[in-house]
Amino acid sequence: MTSLDELIQALAKLPGIGRKSAARLAYHLLQTDQQFNTRLGKLIHSVQQKIIRCSRCGSFTEAGADPCPICTYPDRDRRSICVVEHPQDVLTLESTGAFNGLFHVLGGVISPLDGIGPEQLSLGRLADRIAEESIQEVIVATNPTEEGDTTALYIAHLLKQTGVRISRLASGIPVGGDLEYADRITIARSLRGRTIVD
Amino acid sequence: MTSLDELIQALAKLPGIGRKSAARLAYHLLQTDQQFNTRLGKLIHSVQQKIIRCSRCGSFTEAGADPCPICTYPDRDRRSICVVEHPQDVLTLESTGAFNGLFHVLGGVISPLDGIGPEQLSLGRLADRIAEESIQEVIVATNPTEEGDTTALYIAHLLKQTGVRISRLASGIPVGGDLEYADRITIARSLRGRTIVD
Repeated sequence: MTSLDELIQALAKLPGIGRKSAARLAYHLLQTDQQFNTRLGKLIHSVQQKIIRCSRCGSFTEAGADPCPICTYPDRDRRSICVVEHPQDVLTLESTGAFNGLFHVLGGVISPLDGIGPEQLSLGRLADRIAEESIQEVIVATNPTEEGDTTALYIAHLLKQTGVRISRLASGIPVGGDLEYADRITIARSLRGRTIVD
Repeated sequence: MTSLDELIQALAKLPGIGRKSAARLAYHLLQTDQQFNTRLGKLIHSVQQKIIRCSRCGSFTEAGADPCPICTYPDRDRRSICVVEHPQDVLTLESTGAFNGLFHVLGGVISPLDGIGPEQLSLGRLADRIAEESIQEVIVATNPTEEGDTTALYIAHLLKQTGVRISRLASGIPVGGDLEYADRITIARSLRGRTIVD
């Protein structure tokens, strides 16, 4: 196997990149300037040393900045915490500019079929944070899947005694979407979660 | 800018990878096993040292194997040569198993708008090969674009004196395609290039 085949095989292991795209990328890398390859190669090699998990929220942060900037930034609203499945969800929510509170990354959702129970997620750490910090509302932003819903219920149960408010992101027809193309479950949810027009 | 942002920016420079896919890839690389990253990083860094251009046909080959295996393999048909735009076209044609001759990579097509004239392509080298080797047919497999057609005509003109047969890949309705969805120019070409049913 040539280095080119090896490179194609390795690239094809990345998510969303099939055999054909991998070949296209490899041929591009063969013909681009070597400086770019040197830089990209180094970045890929070292990213896990330079970017670590924040010891407080579980999101990604630079090796020298733990807790992460979101956890330590003084102007954020420390009364509400948004619970997400994965670190990339923090980026997605931050990009909306619609939330200015804290985050907590679970590392997944409860999924018995995949062998993931509550103990595999950072739920104990979440309970500790609720006890230690001045949080008044927990917004559960797990995906609106069966596992995400189960996890939200579990969190509500887990934190019941603390008296904090537990909420869940609304699910329904996407903005700009069309009733005609929405599935029945989504429509049913959007009915249950209907909001008053005023 | 963090190393994560740098990695996302570098990945987004690759063809077919937008900002969102780049972020998804970067987060995957953050969470995959480090061994994979080390290997992929090295492969990207070193691919241009390990894979070079074949001095005969211009296709890619391993640094220790020049001329390339296709040029040197004794069982290939040395009477016909397929002229392609880019090295990856060799891979595409090889994957069909429908051609067993030699290849010649032009490195592009004649495109005055992009400032690419005949002298930027390996056309002189092609003429030399026709003079030196025992080639009887040149199959021009440039893409069926205006530039690809111009280049094919140029090659036919260039090699006119040599007496070799010059052919061009057929263009027409793709197999499994539908007349209804084909464009007018493709249909016109498929009419001109019609074949006898026997």
